[in-house]
Amino acid sequence: MTQTVLAEKHNGVLTLTINRPERRNALDIATYLGLAEQILAARDDKNIRAIVLTGANHYFTAGNDLKDFQTPRPAGDSAGIKFLRSLVDCDCPIVAAIEGSAIGIGVTMLQHCDFIYAADNVTFKIPFVPLGLCPEGASSMLMAQIVGTRRATDWLLRGRPFSAQEALEADFITGLCVPGQALQTALNTANELAALPPEALQTSKRMLKHSLRPNIHAAFDYEWAHFNERLKSTEAQAAFAKFLNKKK
Amino acid sequence: MTQTVLAEKHNGVLTLTINRPERRNALDIATYLGLAEQILAARDDKNIRAIVLTGANHYFTAGNDLKDFQTPRPAGDSAGIKFLRSLVDCDCPIVAAIEGSAIGIGVTMLQHCDFIYAADNVTFKIPFVPLGLCPEGASSMLMAQIVGTRRATDWLLRGRPFSAQEALEADFITGLCVPGQALQTALNTANELAALPPEALQTSKRMLKHSLRPNIHAAFDYEWAHFNERLKSTEAQAAFAKFLNKKK
Amino acid sequence: MTQTVLAEKHNGVLTLTINRPERRNALDIATYLGLAEQILAARDDKNIRAIVLTGANHYFTAGNDLKDFQTPRPAGDSAGIKFLRSLVDCDCPIVAAIEGSAIGIGVTMLQHCDFIYAADNVTFKIPFVPLGLCPEGASSMLMAQIVGTRRATDWLLRGRPFSAQEALEADFITGLCVPGQALQTALNTANELAALPPEALQTSKRMLKHSLRPNIHAAFDYEWAHFNERLKSTEAQAAFAKFLNKKK
Repeated sequence: MTQTVLAEKHNGVLTLTINRPERRNALDIATYLGLAEQILAARDDKNIRAIVLTGANHYFTAGNDLKDFQTPRPAGDSAGIKFLRSLVDCDCPIVAAIEGSAIGIGVTMLQHCDFIYAADNVTFKIPFVPLGLCPEGASSMLMAQIVGTRRATDWLLRGRPFSAQEALEADFITGLCVPGQALQTALNTANELAALPPEALQTSKRMLKHSLRPNIHAAFDYEWAHFNERLKSTEAQAAFAKFLNKKK
Repeated sequence: MTQTVLAEKHNGVLTLTINRPERRNALDIATYLGLAEQILAARDDKNIRAIVLTGANHYFTAGNDLKDFQTPRPAGDSAGIKFLRSLVDCDCPIVAAIEGSAIGIGVTMLQHCDFIYAADNVTFKIPFVPLGLCPEGASSMLMAQIVGTRRATDWLLRGRPFSAQEALEADFITGLCVPGQALQTALNTANELAALPPEALQTSKRMLKHSLRPNIHAAFDYEWAHFNERLKSTEAQAAFAKFLNKKK
Repeated sequence: MTQTVLAEKHNGVLTLTINRPERRNALDIATYLGLAEQILAARDDKNIRAIVLTGANHYFTAGNDLKDFQTPRPAGDSAGIKFLRSLVDCDCPIVAAIEGSAIGIGVTMLQHCDFIYAADNVTFKIPFVPLGLCPEGASSMLMAQIVGTRRATDWLLRGRPFSAQEALEADFITGLCVPGQALQTALNTANELAALPPEALQTSKRMLKHSLRPNIHAAFDYEWAHFNERLKSTEAQAAFAKFLNKKK
């Protein structure tokens, strides 16, 4: 069995790679839980000073595996939410490196990262409403805080795709690079962070997140009830069937 | 008697036009109440998927009719606040189309719209302080959230006019167009919204507004007490008299 | 003894100049308290309509005098916090004029000013983490509100210096000017503010700050506990010793 999450440690930097290239790194339950496990372990490992999050084969992630949206959900946090909560509670800085595309939860997870570098040909897309769904990943609350009300409305309500350049203008990402250089750019920042006084760094991140964290966790709960209703809706199931048929 | 609010329905899009061209579409009590009535009715009409708000004769609105600022106010919500509350509580997306100018409440009402398109020669102005007044329309709270602290301060405290280009840079509006094309640009987005899954769209808008709405209604109450004091002040009455004399 | 705070009143504008040019206007206890005293007095002086804050000798301030970070702190608010609280509670608009550099608290104090003009060759720097420290001046809460999450993270966690041009793009400052013209640019705005209806102006500023002020004061308290711990840490004391040695 191939590992869907690759983990590599080097000089205090943990690099996590989403590794399902044959599915455009779509996130299934095993991958979410693999990522969450690595991030939770990093929190307790004093030797890890920064985490880099990226996707295999020059592609970030196509988002939640749509197949998993067609089966009933157990009660409580989904695997996706468990992964997001691990990001939110991590005091170690997280640097994302984006090539190719980031879609759906591939975009909303970036709200919970600290530094984001994208190749200048990347496309972002949050197609919740076109798929009959609704905002998740705390985007109903956080996206407007990060990119402003107008962009959040345009990206989330209309589901309009946006370019890496627009993502930079909107301050959704930290910086652009030429295609193929996102991982190296992220590693440069991660190495720089790893050289800073570690207690000062983690204390400072914790302080910046202090008043936000409880609200983010509450937003996950609030959104999840709506998202589950939406998943079962005629609108969403029709949209999934159409999308999956189109791909055959 | 001419109707001061024109309403037209087409393919799920309700277009509301402020129609007092001889007064540069200044908003009097009848116009506010006419707008509020249409918006409240649209909330209960499943066939309306998007609302477009615009002004007649290639001009958005000169704001509150200053004549109405010179007469005593009844207790409770003014007609203007009733109109604003109807915007805030509307789950149906609202698209504004701006030509000419938007002044005073003509600017602050845009905080409660979802998509805003302005011709590139439009001027915006929030002259509360120069008129001896103070922020209304929840701008004391929302404007900084939408356009950032620095612009909100510059626009609200100093009352400095700003161009459509600056409004776009500040993310106060969604997009620019050539003069004469604001309505068509707004209709394009409204038609696109009307074609999206309607429950997903309205649920998503409600979620984006979820934590904001109670705070906005509270801001109306908070501001209103101050605004009424200001209206009665020597500073404001002197400014109105000067302004109305200048126009004669 | 030279005065470390110069105060000048002219046409309703109070200009306060940080005057320790031999220490690059580094702020020691006497200077903080001198500034706080002037600002508190201005609050009760109806003739003062606007305050300009600047630094002597074409330099804003190098921040807290590092020597004062090496001695034990008394309980309660530091002189720096007393100064910041006086800014936060001031209803009179505050206009900052920046030449040279602004470092540490020289940057975080700007969060509590209303209009900020910087020469286009100014450098800003918030080196808390590199010095083993953590955010202060309510920057853990306010900076992201003013400049967005991405910039706040980059400036505060990484301590990356930024240019006046970047500060403008991030809406951290109101405007740029050519070197040598920051004070005059600030005075132009201050004079314009001083000519506005004074009650309307102060009421409006109070309204814009209404819901923020209690949160800012709480942020000072929250941060201060962490900052004091950080000051005593091995990381910070090593960083100060290295920095002060390098300067000899």
